[in-house]
Amino acid sequence: MRRFVIGQAKNLIDQTRRRPPQPHHHNNLRLLSLLRPPASDTTPVSSPRLFSSSSSDMSGSDSSTSSLPVTLDSINPKVLKCEYAVRGEIVSIAQRLQDDLKTNKDAYPFDEIIYCNIGNPQSLGQQPITFFREVLALCSHTALLDESATHGLFSSDSIDRAWKILDQIPGKATGAYSHSQGIKGLRDAIAAGIEARDGFPADPNDIFMTDGASPGVHMMMQLLISSEKDGILCPIPQYPLYSASIALHGGSLVPYYLDEASGWGLEISELKKQLEDAKSKGITVRALAVINPGNPTGQVLSEENQRDIVDFCKKEGLVLLADEVYQENVYVPDKKFHSFKKVARSMGYGEKDISLVSFQSISKGYYGECGKRGGYMEVTGFTSDVREQIYKVASVNLCSNISGQILASLVMSPPKPGDDSYDSYIAEKEGILSSLATRAKTLEEALNKLEGVTCNRAEGAMYLFPCINLPQKAIAAAEAAKTAPDAFYCKRLLNATGIVVVPGSGFRQVPGTWHFRCTILPQEDKIPAIVNRLTEFHKSFMNEFRD
Amino acid sequence: MRRFVIGQAKNLIDQTRRRPPQPHHHNNLRLLSLLRPPASDTTPVSSPRLFSSSSSDMSGSDSSTSSLPVTLDSINPKVLKCEYAVRGEIVSIAQRLQDDLKTNKDAYPFDEIIYCNIGNPQSLGQQPITFFREVLALCSHTALLDESATHGLFSSDSIDRAWKILDQIPGKATGAYSHSQGIKGLRDAIAAGIEARDGFPADPNDIFMTDGASPGVHMMMQLLISSEKDGILCPIPQYPLYSASIALHGGSLVPYYLDEASGWGLEISELKKQLEDAKSKGITVRALAVINPGNPTGQVLSEENQRDIVDFCKKEGLVLLADEVYQENVYVPDKKFHSFKKVARSMGYGEKDISLVSFQSISKGYYGECGKRGGYMEVTGFTSDVREQIYKVASVNLCSNISGQILASLVMSPPKPGDDSYDSYIAEKEGILSSLATRAKTLEEALNKLEGVTCNRAEGAMYLFPCINLPQKAIAAAEAAKTAPDAFYCKRLLNATGIVVVPGSGFRQVPGTWHFRCTILPQEDKIPAIVNRLTEFHKSFMNEFRD
Repeated sequence: MRRFVIGQAKNLIDQTRRRPPQPHHHNNLRLLSLLRPPASDTTPVSSPRLFSSSSSDMSGSDSSTSSLPVTLDSINPKVLKCEYAVRGEIVSIAQRLQDDLKTNKDAYPFDEIIYCNIGNPQSLGQQPITFFREVLALCSHTALLDESATHGLFSSDSIDRAWKILDQIPGKATGAYSHSQGIKGLRDAIAAGIEARDGFPADPNDIFMTDGASPGVHMMMQLLISSEKDGILCPIPQYPLYSASIALHGGSLVPYYLDEASGWGLEISELKKQLEDAKSKGITVRALAVINPGNPTGQVLSEENQRDIVDFCKKEGLVLLADEVYQENVYVPDKKFHSFKKVARSMGYGEKDISLVSFQSISKGYYGECGKRGGYMEVTGFTSDVREQIYKVASVNLCSNISGQILASLVMSPPKPGDDSYDSYIAEKEGILSSLATRAKTLEEALNKLEGVTCNRAEGAMYLFPCINLPQKAIAAAEAAKTAPDAFYCKRLLNATGIVVVPGSGFRQVPGTWHFRCTILPQEDKIPAIVNRLTEFHKSFMNEFRD
Repeated sequence: MRRFVIGQAKNLIDQTRRRPPQPHHHNNLRLLSLLRPPASDTTPVSSPRLFSSSSSDMSGSDSSTSSLPVTLDSINPKVLKCEYAVRGEIVSIAQRLQDDLKTNKDAYPFDEIIYCNIGNPQSLGQQPITFFREVLALCSHTALLDESATHGLFSSDSIDRAWKILDQIPGKATGAYSHSQGIKGLRDAIAAGIEARDGFPADPNDIFMTDGASPGVHMMMQLLISSEKDGILCPIPQYPLYSASIALHGGSLVPYYLDEASGWGLEISELKKQLEDAKSKGITVRALAVINPGNPTGQVLSEENQRDIVDFCKKEGLVLLADEVYQENVYVPDKKFHSFKKVARSMGYGEKDISLVSFQSISKGYYGECGKRGGYMEVTGFTSDVREQIYKVASVNLCSNISGQILASLVMSPPKPGDDSYDSYIAEKEGILSSLATRAKTLEEALNKLEGVTCNRAEGAMYLFPCINLPQKAIAAAEAAKTAPDAFYCKRLLNATGIVVVPGSGFRQVPGTWHFRCTILPQEDKIPAIVNRLTEFHKSFMNEFRD
C-alpha cells in the first residue's frame, strides 16, 4: 500500500529543515510525567499548564518570553473569568494518564480511561443511525446518485431523501454558503417536525440553524447582555455553557437553585426570590434559562410546572431561553417531554405575548451526532427589528455547516412507516434509547448503594448527579491540597479507576454540598465493571477518610 | 415514488392544527413586493425590515408588540453597531427580486440574479474537488468501506485516505466531539502541509481547527479586546468581518489606508502614522490585521513588504493577525504567496520574538468548500498561560465540525504524484485556478474600459474593487435617496441587470472615493453577458447623470 502522504511530507521536511527537529509535545508530556509523581490530588493542579511543553522555543520561564506582547494581565478579563469544567482540569489529567498508559501500562490499576465527563455517545461506542449517515454520504459526494451501483449500497429512501435535499439547495451545491439562517428547504422540514411534535404551527423563518446548540446560546447572550447590570436567571446546578457564555459576554449569572430533595424541582417561589434579590442589587434580569430535561440533573419538568414558568416569564418580562436539546432523552414512563412553545401556545400565548427561544441540537437524543455540529434555535416573540439584529449577527458568520444542517433536518423528519429504512431506523433508535434507560437505572441504583451517596433518578438527559456526603477528614485533605472536596474525590476516582467524572463544583451547587456528574453513556457491557470499580474505590476512599 | 415526508407532515398538521394556518413569509413578501414599487434607489431602504412579515401575529405596529420585553433600546449596543455589508441591504433587495422573478418574469429586464457579492464559488457552479468529496462520503458513512462495490465507485487513494483518517479518530467515531483544537492526527497532517509549504517546522499543537476562518478571528478579537481602549489596526478597504468582530467585542478599529494608486500598496509609514494617531487618542493597539492576498482589494504582498510588516509588529509589540485564506488564489506570474510565518522564520524570528496567528479556510482556494465550514488558525509566539486561555475558549464550543476538520486536513495534504486520484485532482485544480485567472483578467479589462472607472488587477483572492468616479448629479441623487453614492450605483445596477455587487462603503474607503466589490466567480460562459450588461448599464447610468 502507498505510504501515507503525511509521512512523506514529514520526511521531506526533516531533510530540509534549517533548524534541528523540535521535540514533540507528546514526548515532552511523557517526559514531564516521568519527572513528576503520577498526577494525584496532592499535586497542585489549580492552574494546569496545558501548553507548557508544546513549543521548545518557549522554555516557560517568564524572562525568556518577556518580549511577547500578550500577557494574562493584558487580555480580556472576561476570558479569564470564563470557566468550563466539562473540559477542564480533570480532563487534562485524564489525557496525560491516557498518554502515559500507552507505554507505562503496569503503572496503573486500570487499562483504559473511561470518559464519563461529557455527553459524547459515539466516543464510547454508540453507532450512528444508518439512514442519517447514508443521506449524508450521498449529499457529500453527489456523483454517487448517478451510479447504478449506489442502489445496491444505499436504502431507497436515503437516495430519495438525498435528491429531495439537493433539490432544495440552489444549484445542488452542498459546498456553498447557505442563507444565513440555513437552507430554506431544510428549515421547512424542521418547522414541519416541530409542528408534528407540538401540534402548533411553526414558521421556517423562525428557525436559525447553528453549529450545535452552543453558538445559538452565545448569540442570544450576546444580544441580551450589555454589561454586568444585565442578568440571566440560570438553574444551579447548571450546564457550564451558561456560566461560561455569561462570563464571556460580561453579564451576571443570577442563580436559582433546583431542589434536590424533590428530584431537582424548579420552584417558582425560588425564581421570584432570586429575581427580587438581583433587582435589589441593581441587576436587570433579561432572561430565564431552563434546561429540560435537566443537565446535569436529569429531571423532566411537568407540564404544570412549565405553565407556571411561562406565566412567570410573561409577568416579569423575561425572555425564556429553553434548552431542549435532550427532548428525545426521556427514560421513565411517568414523564413526557413538552416543548415550552407547545406549553405557551396551549395557554393561548402567541407571538405577541412571550419571547421564547428553543435550542435543539443533533448532538444528543438517540442520534448523538456531536462531531457534526448541527442544531437550531426557534426564535419566537421578538419584534421584527430585534430579529433583524439576530439575523445580522448570524450573517457575520455566514452560515452553519451544511452537513450539520442536513442532519438537523433529518433528526426532525426521520423515516416514516412504509419507508425502506423505517424498520431498521426504529430498531436502531429504540435499541439506543432503551439501553440508555437501562444504563441510567443500573448506575443510579449502584450509586445509591454507596455509603453517604444519594442520587436522584435520571428521568431524562444523559447524566447522573449524585450527592456525596464527604467525611470531614476528606474535606480537610482537599483543603490541604488546595482543591474543592468534590474535585479531590473525582481526581482520586480517576487515579484509582480511570473513570473521568466532573466535580459538582464545575456546575455550581448548594454551598457545602458535594456532587459529581457522570454520564450514562458507557456501553452496557462495560457498566458492570464500572460499577465494581466505582464501588471498590468508594469503599476504600471512605475507609481512608472515615472521621 | 414515495411522497416526501415533509409534505406528509405538513398535511397532517394542516388537518389538526388548532388555529388557522399562518400565511407564509414567502407569500407575504411577494404580496408586499406587489404593493410597493419594485425595489429601487428611490425606495428608502436604509433600515430594511427583513422580518417584518415573517409572523402574522406581529403586524408590525409598535403597540401590538409593546408587551415584548426586548427592544432595540434594551439590546447590547455592540450588536447594533456591528455591520456586515456582504450580506446586507443589497442582498435583501436581491432576494426579494429573485422571489418575484419566479412569478413575474416579464417585469424585469433580466431572467436571473447573479450573486457577485460574496466569495461563494460553488453557488455559481464551481464543482467540488472529487477526491475531497470521496473521502468525505466514506468518512460520513463508514459502512461503505466494508463493501466490495465501493471499490468500483471510489478512487483507491480516497479509500486509503478514509482509512487513515478513521484510524486517527478514537473509535473511528466521526460523530464524536473531538479534542477542542481538532483531531490530533488531522492537525498532524495540517502541520506537515504547513512545513511542506514553508520549509519551516510547524507544531500540530499550534493548530486550532475552526468552523471556517471567521470563528478564529472572533476568538482572537475576544482575547485581545477588553474595551474601546483596545485597538486593532485594519486595512481600509477591509473585509467587514474585521469591523464587525471588533464592534461586537467593543474594541476600536484603527484604520490604515491601502494605496490604490500603487496597486493597493501597504505602506509602513501609514501604519506608523495611524498607530501614533491611535496612541494620541488613548488607544492601545493590540494587533495588526493583514489580509494577503487582499480582500476586497486583490493585491499580493511582496516578501520585502512582508518583512517590513513583521519588523513593525515586532518593534511595536503587536500581534500579527495574518488572514491568509486566499493563499492558493494567486493569478499573476510575477507574484507568489509567502506565509507570514515563513517570512518571520526566514528573518530568524522564532516563538519568543513575534506573536503571529495565521488564519486558513477551506472556503477559498481552488476548493471553495464554503458550506462545509472548515479552517484553522496556527497560533505561534504566545506564552503558555495565554495559550491555555485560547484553549479554554475553544473548549466552551467543544470542537469544530468533523467534516470541516477532515476537509481542512485534505486541503493541506492533497493527492501526491503516483496516487490514483492525482491526475484528475491536478486537472480539476488547475482548471479552476486558470479559469479564475482568465475571469479576473476579462472582468478587470472590461471594468477599465468603462467611463470614469479604474480598476487594479486582481493579483489574487476572488474580487475586483473598481473605483467609480461618479458624476455630481448621481451623488446628489443618492443624497436625496438617503443612500451612499456607491450603494445608489449598486442598487441601480442590480435593478437594471440582476447583478449583485457590494458597495465600497461596506468595506470603508478613502472618504470621497466610491467603489464596489465584484467577485470573479461567475462561470466563464456567463462572463461575456455580464460584461455586456454591466457596460450597457454603466453607459446609461453615466448618460442619465452626466454633469
